[in-house]
Amino acid sequence: MTKQQSHTIHFGNIVDGGLVLDEVLISLFKTPRSYTREDVVEISCHGSTYIIESIIKLLIKKGARSAKAGEFTLRAFLNGQLDLSQAEAVADLIASNSKASQQVAFQQLRGGFSSQLQSLRDQLVQFASLIELELDFAEEDVEFANRDQLKKLIREINGVIRNLIRSFELGNAIKQGVNTVIAGRPNAGKSTLLNALLNEERAIVSHLPGTTRDTIEEVLNINGINFRLIDTAGIREATDAIEQIGVQRTMEKIGQSAILVYLFDVNEITVEELKQDIESLQKPGVKMIVVANKIDLLESGSKKVDFSDGDAASTQLSKLSDFRTFGLSDFLAISAKEKQHIDKLKQKIYSAAIKDKLTGDETLVTNIRHLEALQKTEEALMRVLKGMDTVTSDFLAMDIKQALHYLGEITGAVTTDDLLENIFSKFCIGK
Amino acid sequence: MTKQQSHTIHFGNIVDGGLVLDEVLISLFKTPRSYTREDVVEISCHGSTYIIESIIKLLIKKGARSAKAGEFTLRAFLNGQLDLSQAEAVADLIASNSKASQQVAFQQLRGGFSSQLQSLRDQLVQFASLIELELDFAEEDVEFANRDQLKKLIREINGVIRNLIRSFELGNAIKQGVNTVIAGRPNAGKSTLLNALLNEERAIVSHLPGTTRDTIEEVLNINGINFRLIDTAGIREATDAIEQIGVQRTMEKIGQSAILVYLFDVNEITVEELKQDIESLQKPGVKMIVVANKIDLLESGSKKVDFSDGDAASTQLSKLSDFRTFGLSDFLAISAKEKQHIDKLKQKIYSAAIKDKLTGDETLVTNIRHLEALQKTEEALMRVLKGMDTVTSDFLAMDIKQALHYLGEITGAVTTDDLLENIFSKFCIGK
Repeated sequence: MTKQQSHTIHFGNIVDGGLVLDEVLISLFKTPRSYTREDVVEISCHGSTYIIESIIKLLIKKGARSAKAGEFTLRAFLNGQLDLSQAEAVADLIASNSKASQQVAFQQLRGGFSSQLQSLRDQLVQFASLIELELDFAEEDVEFANRDQLKKLIREINGVIRNLIRSFELGNAIKQGVNTVIAGRPNAGKSTLLNALLNEERAIVSHLPGTTRDTIEEVLNINGINFRLIDTAGIREATDAIEQIGVQRTMEKIGQSAILVYLFDVNEITVEELKQDIESLQKPGVKMIVVANKIDLLESGSKKVDFSDGDAASTQLSKLSDFRTFGLSDFLAISAKEKQHIDKLKQKIYSAAIKDKLTGDETLVTNIRHLEALQKTEEALMRVLKGMDTVTSDFLAMDIKQALHYLGEITGAVTTDDLLENIFSKFCIGK
Repeated sequence: MTKQQSHTIHFGNIVDGGLVLDEVLISLFKTPRSYTREDVVEISCHGSTYIIESIIKLLIKKGARSAKAGEFTLRAFLNGQLDLSQAEAVADLIASNSKASQQVAFQQLRGGFSSQLQSLRDQLVQFASLIELELDFAEEDVEFANRDQLKKLIREINGVIRNLIRSFELGNAIKQGVNTVIAGRPNAGKSTLLNALLNEERAIVSHLPGTTRDTIEEVLNINGINFRLIDTAGIREATDAIEQIGVQRTMEKIGQSAILVYLFDVNEITVEELKQDIESLQKPGVKMIVVANKIDLLESGSKKVDFSDGDAASTQLSKLSDFRTFGLSDFLAISAKEKQHIDKLKQKIYSAAIKDKLTGDETLVTNIRHLEALQKTEEALMRVLKGMDTVTSDFLAMDIKQALHYLGEITGAVTTDDLLENIFSKFCIGK
């Protein structure tokens, strides 16, 4: 091996005693130009379970052992190839199932998040060194650091951290998919809408088994973001009106979602019922999109509604019909059956989740561990800010060290064995 | 690519416009040092379905197309890297699930079979050229080839071919596994025996769904050969004695098998019943192993049987008990429950399938296409032999050409598009 160059491939036999187990290709990666920065050998054999097993048995006989889950990436981290948030991005990248989730994971793998944290740490270290200096001269009651400038710096840092914390909502949505409930009365056309949304979709569409066995979710990809559509069809069959029965289960599902698409049959519902439904389904933190369905069945001639444009139709409808008495102008009029204005609905769903178009360059927090560390950093910095005028420098220094500690946990500048065990045990074997 | 050396690995990004799809490793194999002898590039990306799909889409956009099943191996064959029987061995190697099946496929991949066929072809070509020479001088009634020597040569060639044909039984058993039915009356201990056979087994043991959905087979590996154990348990539950009901289904299963393990409870059965069972279960071509079970329940003291040795016990049992009246001396006495003499039974099962220990060097025919070609070759050669004294040289030459044609079909010296299509469409994609 020492005679061979790194990044070369060699053809040969794997031999156990006199027995040839297989013809294989051996790929060679020499330190430090490998994933783990160690010498690495990869064996490509024929894909027979028997052959693979035989080769692994032979390697173990010769003193090798099976890798633990995530061990290669752990080694890469321990050898300084990746920091901890980059290592975590490897798992995210492998699990990515949409353009957006791939981009966010890739940005993190490339160190976008890490360098932002590094710059925060650098600023804090600078700050801390000024405070430490004061400590050294504590008895002389000197203030090396201008308090107002320090406050401004902490506020700036905290502003960045708060933005990162805020980005988790979107980051998590991108990583996990955005839970989107479709609710409405029986025969509002929910299943037809679901099909209309999915049929036009050319990206990956799949059935995902939900957390509970009886929940089937459909994944709809809009502009690279996955939306997990949750139909409440199972409930409606047994009920006449939403408020009568399954409200509890529906409300549970809505509570776990970011978006609620409330669908009603524009021909069948009274304004009073509509009002009841909307009020009973409202839940803080859940964005509701109100959609009037079956506009194809309206006698459009008599009402002089132009259904060629969904938004215009909605506006005209709200003026023409009784709906205006409810003051409901912000709804979208569609025909799920005729696939009218389905694209507009998709854009509305997308906008409800993503305020601005993603450029792919933004740093988004997607990891709950990172979120918690950032929240703790923020708390520590708030203590620094509050204590600036009242407590002594040594207390300030302690809080700043805490903030540095929490930031360091994200990149792995500060780690414990438990933390590493916890992170890498979630990786698959071979990664 | 032209600037890079063959068998090198390169790290980089796959980029679609401005968008980085993934960090990847590219392995380079340059003509003729690749599997297909063409320039080959392999991309190793992160294992996310989304990423894989994106990269494939990009490649297709850039003019690539998906490979057809077996296309790489077909190209390897068409470019002279492998002959046809070697190409087929690639699929066999991937499907191999035991030491023996891996060895047979590997021997074929390495060209063991091919070179044997080549030497046969060479001899036949030599023979043919002598006959052709006679044709050229037909009017002069010359015999360049001594008829007796020619006959000897043909007989020798046919002897080799017949051995190859005969090897198919073993070769096929090794490749497919040896079907082994366990039959016996209710409570003979069949399931206990099955468990005893499998529990002691340290090699790969798995449930294989059978050809019909209700048949579950257990695979037992003995000395590197897979035996597919077929329990007839499903039948016995509904019956009192084998001959009464499920005989038909049992007989069907026995008919599809190479080995029948007939198990009886030595304490429960009468010699008459035993005789009936054995007679009714006998089937031509199926080797029967008669096994007396539950010797642990015999009052061994009174019968002075030494059960420490299965064979000796069988001999003594057959002398002591009524079984000798049936003349049944060739049975094995075991206790499935106490796991006594299970190893002896395994050796009996193995010996029933494999006469001589395999050395790993023998050429075994495992492919039904090869078998048929060899049979046709043999027939053609028999015609040559029969015609030697009676027909004219031109007829002899025709038959020899036929024999050469059939031999050539095996290695692909003679092929048709249909034949290639038929062979390679059974490969998986990417092979």
